[in-house]
Amino acid sequence: MNYRMEIAYDGTRYNGWQKLGDSPDTIQEKIERVLSSLAGESVDVHGAGRTDAGVHAAGQVAQFRMPDHLDGTLSAPMIRAYLNRYLPDDIGILSVSKAAPRFHSRYHAKGKIYTYRMTRDLSRHVFDRRYITRLDPEVILDTVSMRAAAAQLVGTHDFKSFCGNTHFKKSTVRTIFSIDLKEDGPDLTITYYGEGFLQYMVRIMTGTLLEIGLGERDADCIPSVLNAKNRRAAGKTAPPEGLTLTKVLY
Amino acid sequence: MNYRMEIAYDGTRYNGWQKLGDSPDTIQEKIERVLSSLAGESVDVHGAGRTDAGVHAAGQVAQFRMPDHLDGTLSAPMIRAYLNRYLPDDIGILSVSKAAPRFHSRYHAKGKIYTYRMTRDLSRHVFDRRYITRLDPEVILDTVSMRAAAAQLVGTHDFKSFCGNTHFKKSTVRTIFSIDLKEDGPDLTITYYGEGFLQYMVRIMTGTLLEIGLGERDADCIPSVLNAKNRRAAGKTAPPEGLTLTKVLY
Repeated sequence: MNYRMEIAYDGTRYNGWQKLGDSPDTIQEKIERVLSSLAGESVDVHGAGRTDAGVHAAGQVAQFRMPDHLDGTLSAPMIRAYLNRYLPDDIGILSVSKAAPRFHSRYHAKGKIYTYRMTRDLSRHVFDRRYITRLDPEVILDTVSMRAAAAQLVGTHDFKSFCGNTHFKKSTVRTIFSIDLKEDGPDLTITYYGEGFLQYMVRIMTGTLLEIGLGERDADCIPSVLNAKNRRAAGKTAPPEGLTLTKVLY
Repeated sequence: MNYRMEIAYDGTRYNGWQKLGDSPDTIQEKIERVLSSLAGESVDVHGAGRTDAGVHAAGQVAQFRMPDHLDGTLSAPMIRAYLNRYLPDDIGILSVSKAAPRFHSRYHAKGKIYTYRMTRDLSRHVFDRRYITRLDPEVILDTVSMRAAAAQLVGTHDFKSFCGNTHFKKSTVRTIFSIDLKEDGPDLTITYYGEGFLQYMVRIMTGTLLEIGLGERDADCIPSVLNAKNRRAAGKTAPPEGLTLTKVLY
């Protein structure tokens, strides 16, 4: 049986979503271990988005296949309860449901929403301090320029300059549907909604927008950064702790 | 100059609010150290509520007096910025303001709101898992009986049976204005609004209400528990992690 699950995790202590050769500290690995122990054989889990080390998820989606001979004995709620019982508290399985036989969490995803949170006043975020990036309290951000620059990232572009993996061989063309900046006193939240994102792309866009907000770059630099098709043309990679994969849309 | 401040803290790693002889791991001690270093002399901080080890605050209020000779050089925002700069991230000073010369955070408090959060599904609380008490996922709570019992705690009573300090010599009479139970799927939040609370009182009331919800006690036991004026007549002390001092009213 093919299943789909929705997952939330605090990525602070993990080496990202994606299983790595020798590191067990990935979310994928943790979930696969518990599912394999339930199935009595090795189970592969396929996530919709490969979040990096330290990045969080409120609505990651993943797909996995359980052995057919268990179809009669296992139900989706039973699988969810088992996972939540044996996974650590910083990984929560929000739902498990039967999926169409050919459902694939990554190929069938129509869009993803990432949220990047930052604050100039961390004292207001005692309870969610691990999920927000701190800015210098004294900093003044020109959000008008940041919004103007963000608008120029929206659309279908070659985002090679915003790709952290400089050896990436496949197409670096992606479509961004919207980028929304929300200010709330000392807090700034940027919400990225796109078809898909390259490695570090959201964090490099955030770092670049921040440099524009700080006046270190012109607001109209985006077209030339895109045209450069060179990672060095874009800004710094913003830190992972402020980033959350909020939702995957199908 | 007399000052008032509002404080949020994650109490997980602290030995409570109140300074103890030999333990530096109290929130009061942490704040006093930073203020004393700013003042160049010892500064006492008086909190409105003495939260226990592991209990959190979203709106603790405290009062402190800075040396008069600093009146010309220090402003309330400067004090706040200094505190937030040198305090750890799990203590946040939300505001500092000048207070009337005789203002006292504890004596002048007219009421306090404490919130106790619990859940039968911790997987939904990956990001706030440290601020909620986990219940057995299988448990069924009779919230009708819990609400009926809570209503009997409201009013002015001798709460000696709900006082964790059995050697407490002063009056154990307190007034509770309201107790509100809110269910949200697997989550249950109890909000206590009262004039003031005895040591462990909110947690013992919560533990007692839980025992009623589980059918281990009758819903109409409250009058006899109050009349017993004996700690053993009430239920267990609920764990600290689910409790937050939400607001102090003046």
